[in-house]
Order: sequence, then structure tokens, then C-alpha cells
Amino acid sequence: MSAITHLKNRQCRLASRPVGLPTPANWRFTEEAVAEPAAGGVLVKTLYLSLDPAMRGWMNEGKSYIAPVEINAVMRAGGVGRVIASNNPAFAVGDYVNAGLDVQEYCLISQENIKRSGMFKIDASLGLTTWTNVLGMPGMTGFFGLTEVGLPKAGETVVVSGAAGAVGQTVGQIAKLRGCRVVGIAGGKAKCDWVVSELGFDACIDYKNADVRAGLKEHCPKGVDIYFDNVGGEILDMVLAKITRGARIIICGAISQYNNTTPVKGPANYLSLLVNRARMEGIVVFDYADRYHLAINEMAGYLKAGTMKSKEDVVQGIENFPEALLKLFNGENFGKLVLQITSE
Amino acid sequence: MSAITHLKNRQCRLASRPVGLPTPANWRFTEEAVAEPAAGGVLVKTLYLSLDPAMRGWMNEGKSYIAPVEINAVMRAGGVGRVIASNNPAFAVGDYVNAGLDVQEYCLISQENIKRSGMFKIDASLGLTTWTNVLGMPGMTGFFGLTEVGLPKAGETVVVSGAAGAVGQTVGQIAKLRGCRVVGIAGGKAKCDWVVSELGFDACIDYKNADVRAGLKEHCPKGVDIYFDNVGGEILDMVLAKITRGARIIICGAISQYNNTTPVKGPANYLSLLVNRARMEGIVVFDYADRYHLAINEMAGYLKAGTMKSKEDVVQGIENFPEALLKLFNGENFGKLVLQITSE
Repeated sequence: MSAITHLKNRQCRLASRPVGLPTPANWRFTEEAVAEPAAGGVLVKTLYLSLDPAMRGWMNEGKSYIAPVEINAVMRAGGVGRVIASNNPAFAVGDYVNAGLDVQEYCLISQENIKRSGMFKIDASLGLTTWTNVLGMPGMTGFFGLTEVGLPKAGETVVVSGAAGAVGQTVGQIAKLRGCRVVGIAGGKAKCDWVVSELGFDACIDYKNADVRAGLKEHCPKGVDIYFDNVGGEILDMVLAKITRGARIIICGAISQYNNTTPVKGPANYLSLLVNRARMEGIVVFDYADRYHLAINEMAGYLKAGTMKSKEDVVQGIENFPEALLKLFNGENFGKLVLQITSE
Repeated sequence: MSAITHLKNRQCRLASRPVGLPTPANWRFTEEAVAEPAAGGVLVKTLYLSLDPAMRGWMNEGKSYIAPVEINAVMRAGGVGRVIASNNPAFAVGDYVNAGLDVQEYCLISQENIKRSGMFKIDASLGLTTWTNVLGMPGMTGFFGLTEVGLPKAGETVVVSGAAGAVGQTVGQIAKLRGCRVVGIAGGKAKCDWVVSELGFDACIDYKNADVRAGLKEHCPKGVDIYFDNVGGEILDMVLAKITRGARIIICGAISQYNNTTPVKGPANYLSLLVNRARMEGIVVFDYADRYHLAINEMAGYLKAGTMKSKEDVVQGIENFPEALLKLFNGENFGKLVLQITSE
């Protein structure tokens, strides 16, 4: 009927489960025709996809907080797109939306999935890629993990690993706005300089070139009240050795361990939780879905006022998805990693 | 002046810091004269001492929740004694008390230390050794760890390791009284049978003779909502694999790791905290000192009513302290381990 049915949809599918780091052999690109949306559905053209460490977990078999991506399924991804056909009165052609789009050029979303994926219209004036970053899932993770699990109080010392990443940017900036002392941990001088000079962190420890233990000692003279952990491994142990009484450790991720082919390294210093009457608690962002709008309103206000920033590292082209994803694991990305699928 | 100054006080002192399991060479017995109490002080004759896994930690150098025992100092221990001389109107000769007495036959307690050690008169009709067990520090630890950190709700499944020990007895019985399903983990058939038949646990897994993983699967069909951990190591990891969403893990101790000469085994399954939005939190009993009397009142009521029991394993003689302590680490004690210093 329409021009839509002549469109081809390139898709990146999970061909096999990786052992260790994903390789090109784990992926398969396919093409299929695009269909018109059914009643209540919409068709979205993918503009930007959010590439996140959590994706590595979704590629594994087994129970987790979300079902694994099935073999031969289109790889799961959230992102930002534009509605190009609508059969739903709440969305008009031309609307920019944030939704679960998956790694493909077009996403047909049923009425049921609109609700399930939490699809919503976005304010493009704040920058489209911002909605994959501080206003997207990573931002929600950082915001609710810090505020609801970390319970920061003004004057406390907050340490965040992966400080220049999407979650880290959010955590550090929100902690500063709440009156905390903020110390980041990131890889490389450029990232460390940036979170201090641009985001206003009090300090940042370069784990690739500096002694993290010494850095924690220098920059956290009163100890660590809150640690927002995105990396796990040795750094988690080093921070455990520096926590204060009643400290809160938010377990958000463990990127150092995701590609292990040996067992995960458990935190040998976990008995510091006992000595310090401290707490280590996991966070899954979906639990806060009914309050995303509150965090978005608050952070959109900061972005407009210039008291908060959002930095993305944009890689071009769906065909580069497999390679781009690896940047997360070697720490090559500088800012929230985003894959641009089309320039509209 | 009085007969008191003719008494000799045998004492067990820490001669050196152990590496791994304590050996006889780590201890030294001395004898000194007993002195009259100064104004505000009392002299207590030691009847029973509480032997606890935490003692192993006090023997190590380095920062913890309490200062280490100094080399050549009398070994720290809490216990039950009888006032034999008093210069304090609150305590009369003949009063039975619970106090920090240390490993010695007589303890001279100054006015300041009466307050600091939380010394208080006890009701001997409940049994003297009970005051080292469910009505003593271990009982306070189990009571407040379970109720204040674990936050049990009726119908939840509570797992407790070291189930036949002092803390485990308290945790399991209080959890049952709060309407929970209670599964113990203990070493040997006798202990397991006892916590089920005498204390009313729903089940108990014999870690020395059974597959703990299979036992957890069988006895916790809905998963583990609360785990009260006294042992650490592999068992902590097995339980982490079975926790429910929002589970609470109380870190009370890690007896499997206390005599390690290699680094502590961190829980490799700690990312289960993330998947399950669960929490692992340490407890130190001293934080609840201002409410000990509430827990004692509640549990004394259960003991009198026969709805709670307290079992002690009593070893005789101060000279046997070094050997008796080791029973905790090979799991030989059946019930709360107590050292009887004198029969009054």
C-alpha cells in the first residue's frame, strides 16, 4: 500500500552465545520487509541506540533480572527514534520517542509493547542522544540507585566507578547537586580531567595510570560513605577497605567481570561490611519505572539551567554494532556510548 | 586487710598473635594477687566465660569494630560471675552479674568499666549459662541482627548457618516465633536433629554429610528471603544462588575464614544481589546496647514459658581455655560453648 512496505529493515541478530568477549561470529545481519503498524501500534525509525555494559549479560543464557536474548533474535537495545507511521492516537508521525527499539533500522511496536517498553515522547530540544544518557536508562539507573539505595546526605563522600560513563556522569553530578564530595574512578587522563573540569567532581582517580588505593586515601580523607559500583573486581575490594561506618555500596554492575571465562571474583574484603555495619545492595532500574518521569523532570531542569551536562560518544552505522560494543569493555568510549543508525 | 588480698588470680594472656589456628604457644598463664575494689568498683569471681568465634578476630592486629587484644594482655571474654566485694551501692556481695570479665578467675571492675562493659545483674533462676547464650551477647547479636537488619515477615524463609551455635539458636527460634519458615545449616546429624526436634526448625542441612545445594533446593522451595550468615565461604555462595527478590543477608561472621592463612574467599555470587535487588549488611551487636534489656525481657519470657530453649556445651577449667576455643573452629561444640571457671 504505502511507501513503508517497500522499506527494508536491516537487523543485527544474536547468532551464538559468546564465551568471554563477543566476537563477530556471535552476530548475524539480516534484512526483512517493514510492515504497517496494526491498530494501536506504531512504526519507529531508529535514530540512536544506547550501547550499555548490561547488554553483555543479556547475551548469556540463564536466569537474571531480565530474560536472555534468544539465539537468532534481534539484539535487545533501547534508543531514540522517530515515529514514521502511527495507528495510535497518542503518537503522531514525526514524534521523537524513547523506546526498546532493538538493533535494527525500524521497529514495529504493538500497542502492548508500547506499554511494556515504557515508550514515551521526548523533548528533542534537550538533544536526542541525551535521552540515551542522563535522561535515558543509564541516567535513571544512576539517579535512583544513588538517591534511593545510596541515600546521600550533604557532606558525605561518594565514590563512583565508570565515572565518565553514562551512569557515572549521572551519579556524580546528582551527588554534587546534593552537596556531597564526589570522587570518580575512570580510565585515562582525558576522562579524569573531564569529569573534574566539566562535571565538577572533586577528584578523579585514573585506574589505568595511578594507584587506586593511594588515590582513595588522598581524595577520601574521611573514608567512603557511598560507593556506586559499576566495575566490580579489585576496585570494589579497594573501596571496601575504605568505607565508613554505615556506608552504602550500590551494586549496579561489574564490567570487569562480564567477559570472564573464569568464575567472578567475589569481594574478598566483604567482611568490611560487618566491621562497618555497612550495606551492599543491588539495583535494577526497572523497579523505578513509575517514577522515571520525576527523575527526568528534575534532570531536564538541570540540563536547561546548565547545572548538569551530558556527554555522548557517537559511533556511526548499524553495521558497526559488534565492534562498537567492544569499546565498552576496553574502556575506549569517552562519554555514554551511542550508535547512530541514521541521520533521520 | 581482708581475705581477698590473699587470693591469687590465674589469668590467660595473649602471648603472641596466631597465624591460622591458635596454638598453645599463643597463650601464657600468669598469676597475680587480687586487689580490693576502689570507690565505685566491684570484684567479681568468674563463674562462666562465653567462648565465641569473634575471639579469633580480637587476636589479630589491625582495625576492626573493636580494638585488638594487646600482646601480654589478659584475653578478652564476656561471662557470668558473682560479686564477692563491692564498693558500689548498685551491686551487693552475692549478686550474679553479666560483664566483660576476661579469661581470669577474678575481675576487678572499676566504676568506669562497670558502665563501659555494660555490666548488669542477672536472674540466676533462668540458668547462669543461659546468660552467655540466648540472653548474652550471642543472643543479642542474633535477636537484633534478625529483627533489625533481617526484618523478617511471617511466611518468609529464613536460613541460618551455625544453627546449633549460640547465635543460630537464637535466630532460628526468634524467626519461628515471628512466623517464618526456618532452615538451619549445621555440622553433623546430632546437631541437625536437635535443632529440628528440640528447637522446632522446619529443617536442618548437615553440611558435613549432605549436599548443601540440594538441601537448600529441597527445604527452601520458594527461595531464601533472609540468610543469617555466621560462616561465609562456599555456603554463602550457595545461598546467594537461592535468594529471592529483595532478600536480606545479615553478615554476622565468617567462621570458615577466620583461620585462613590465604586471603578471605569473597562471595563469587555477589552479583545475585544485583539480579535480586537484594542486600547484604553487617551487624555489630554493640550498636544495640541501649536496647539489650528489651530483647532480654522478651526472650526471658519465652524461656519461662518454655517456648524457647537454650543449650550450652560446658568445658571445665581455665587451664583448658586454649584447647576449648579450638572446638569452635572444628565444630566440635554442641550448643553454645562455655568455659566454667569455678563451681562457685
